[in-house]
Amino acid sequence: MRVTFPDAKALKKIVPIVADLISEGQFVATEEGIKLVAMDPASIAMVIWEMKPEAFIDYTIEGDKEIITVSMDDLKTIVKKLKQREMVVWETDREKNKLKILARGTIKKTFSIPLLEGEETETPIPSLEYNNVVELDSKAIKEIIDDASAIADSLKFKAEPPSKLIIKAEGEMKEMTVELTEGEDAVVSIDIQEEAYASYSIDYLKKFAKAADVSDIAILKLKTDYPLWLEYRYLDKMTLIFILAPRSD
Amino acid sequence: MRVTFPDAKALKKIVPIVADLISEGQFVATEEGIKLVAMDPASIAMVIWEMKPEAFIDYTIEGDKEIITVSMDDLKTIVKKLKQREMVVWETDREKNKLKILARGTIKKTFSIPLLEGEETETPIPSLEYNNVVELDSKAIKEIIDDASAIADSLKFKAEPPSKLIIKAEGEMKEMTVELTEGEDAVVSIDIQEEAYASYSIDYLKKFAKAADVSDIAILKLKTDYPLWLEYRYLDKMTLIFILAPRSD
Amino acid sequence: MRVTFPDAKALKKIVPIVADLISEGQFVATEEGIKLVAMDPASIAMVIWEMKPEAFIDYTIEGDKEIITVSMDDLKTIVKKLKQREMVVWETDREKNKLKILARGTIKKTFSIPLLEGEETETPIPSLEYNNVVELDSKAIKEIIDDASAIADSLKFKAEPPSKLIIKAEGEMKEMTVELTEGEDAVVSIDIQEEAYASYSIDYLKKFAKAADVSDIAILKLKTDYPLWLEYRYLDKMTLIFILAPRSD
Repeated sequence: MRVTFPDAKALKKIVPIVADLISEGQFVATEEGIKLVAMDPASIAMVIWEMKPEAFIDYTIEGDKEIITVSMDDLKTIVKKLKQREMVVWETDREKNKLKILARGTIKKTFSIPLLEGEETETPIPSLEYNNVVELDSKAIKEIIDDASAIADSLKFKAEPPSKLIIKAEGEMKEMTVELTEGEDAVVSIDIQEEAYASYSIDYLKKFAKAADVSDIAILKLKTDYPLWLEYRYLDKMTLIFILAPRSD
Repeated sequence: MRVTFPDAKALKKIVPIVADLISEGQFVATEEGIKLVAMDPASIAMVIWEMKPEAFIDYTIEGDKEIITVSMDDLKTIVKKLKQREMVVWETDREKNKLKILARGTIKKTFSIPLLEGEETETPIPSLEYNNVVELDSKAIKEIIDDASAIADSLKFKAEPPSKLIIKAEGEMKEMTVELTEGEDAVVSIDIQEEAYASYSIDYLKKFAKAADVSDIAILKLKTDYPLWLEYRYLDKMTLIFILAPRSD
Repeated sequence: MRVTFPDAKALKKIVPIVADLISEGQFVATEEGIKLVAMDPASIAMVIWEMKPEAFIDYTIEGDKEIITVSMDDLKTIVKKLKQREMVVWETDREKNKLKILARGTIKKTFSIPLLEGEETETPIPSLEYNNVVELDSKAIKEIIDDASAIADSLKFKAEPPSKLIIKAEGEMKEMTVELTEGEDAVVSIDIQEEAYASYSIDYLKKFAKAADVSDIAILKLKTDYPLWLEYRYLDKMTLIFILAPRSD
């Protein structure tokens, strides 16, 4: 495989977030792009990172499918060294069992990290249905989650038709409530067709919310005591989706 | 009580400073505004925080006097989450024994922290008289105190009529001396009517000096072996006064 | 001795770097300026800091030679308190055995640190000869060294005539290779007359590379299994030279 990213922006934003959730990243490269689907070790959160062919300047793989498995910490160490605007090449060196990462900025650097052995592990994406979809300013939802993290360890969502979302953090002594309705700055769109109530771990939400750098909009889908769907789209090139199991409050 | 601050600037600057000195804040609200007077646990420093009615957009209290006692750490946790420019409302909920803090920025957040029980504790302000008053650039005196803190743990002040203030830090090996006289950039006004010599803890001075963000001018009043008076005025809306016991060097 | 620096910029950049290598700094002042030559405690690195007379606004010493020995940590503590643009005076007070450091900014501060006893210790500078000289953008070489530090603990240099320098970091799992040739942004000039291969400690290189703030250009001289010469020139007023023993990889 040899693929070229036009710059390192998306990598620098997304790799650290994914590395915070999983230790080994299995990237499956096909003609439809590169896709990573993984559960975190506690099986509470799923991350789906899809890089469409449009995300690359050039894109060549060997055969129909190539599996690239690397340590996410290794990948994060290198990605942190990349400069935002420098072109980046991923190239597999099957002989040396290495993933070469070429940084083509003012200084031409060639990094390499080990390709990890192992068969393709299929991680099925659950088929989920939602009747409530809320598009929020991604910085706003990040602010709410960060604020709430000083108060409680879980965040309660209450959706009220047709267009109200109440987010609540209840700590031992302190509380925070946010009401989001149509027309507010933080709300891009809000469509609540059925009442819903669910509670989620703030620790995980804080990790996901860092994707506010990836996209201006965060798409939330929720249902009573049902996994939360949280989606970020990077231009029309990549999507980053988190699915988080509810807490039984 | 329901009072509205036009923005969170003063709160964000002052609450952390006061929280660094005392754990419980007793705010006394009367028609003359809200006032906090407290001694630090070691009884070395007194802090007087006065918010005049002009500090509020609207100001309503129940009866002649309302006592609002809260954990300063709780208040600091919430105040740190406020955005500088967002309007802030404090509202007492006596039924739930809570102080509600409403942040009215792009996102409407409602925080609440517990109101602590207990009678009003009167903390008498000592009547002090000074013949030496120095108005300094608050950033300059902060710089001097911060510099001195790398050298010694107490700061010596020597006032020489009619207009010289010498500040000295003498560490085991290192020393620092600053002479401030009329006409220098750091000196707004200096009126020394009697010689004075006193020494104060740099730890406390460093905590007070953070108020350099509150006001451009710091007003010092001092006398030989006598409490130091250090006053900061936030517009014409609030005053923050520290009284610090001298050290017996 | 009484010498006046036009500003604190060079001091603020260089003192912390030298203090990171040696604990006591012996400055020898003669009519040719002030010079410090020292080995680090492990005798792996030599630092030569030369301040020419042009580095000073005024420059007076007692006799032909004056020795000023101070704790570099003391000097660093004070230098960190100086403001970039304020004029700085060094003045020896032989009676009190102090080096006075006068900061002449908006606030006139007088610091003093102890002058340490002891005779002049001569540290001979090895006479070294090189046939390979590379002038690099100092920020670029710093970036390469910083990147490499996440990967390995030694950095391999390979010079190939007439104008190629390969820098390689080989960690247990990860690798980084950089090829620098004439014409690239990072290369100011490159003159390789003989093949050379040597490896050096990244810890030391990271300490030296902080001098990227001192000068835009870093001058490297290297030879197979031979000390590395790394020179930074501050305007035409000061030179900072590091000589680093090779590693026997």
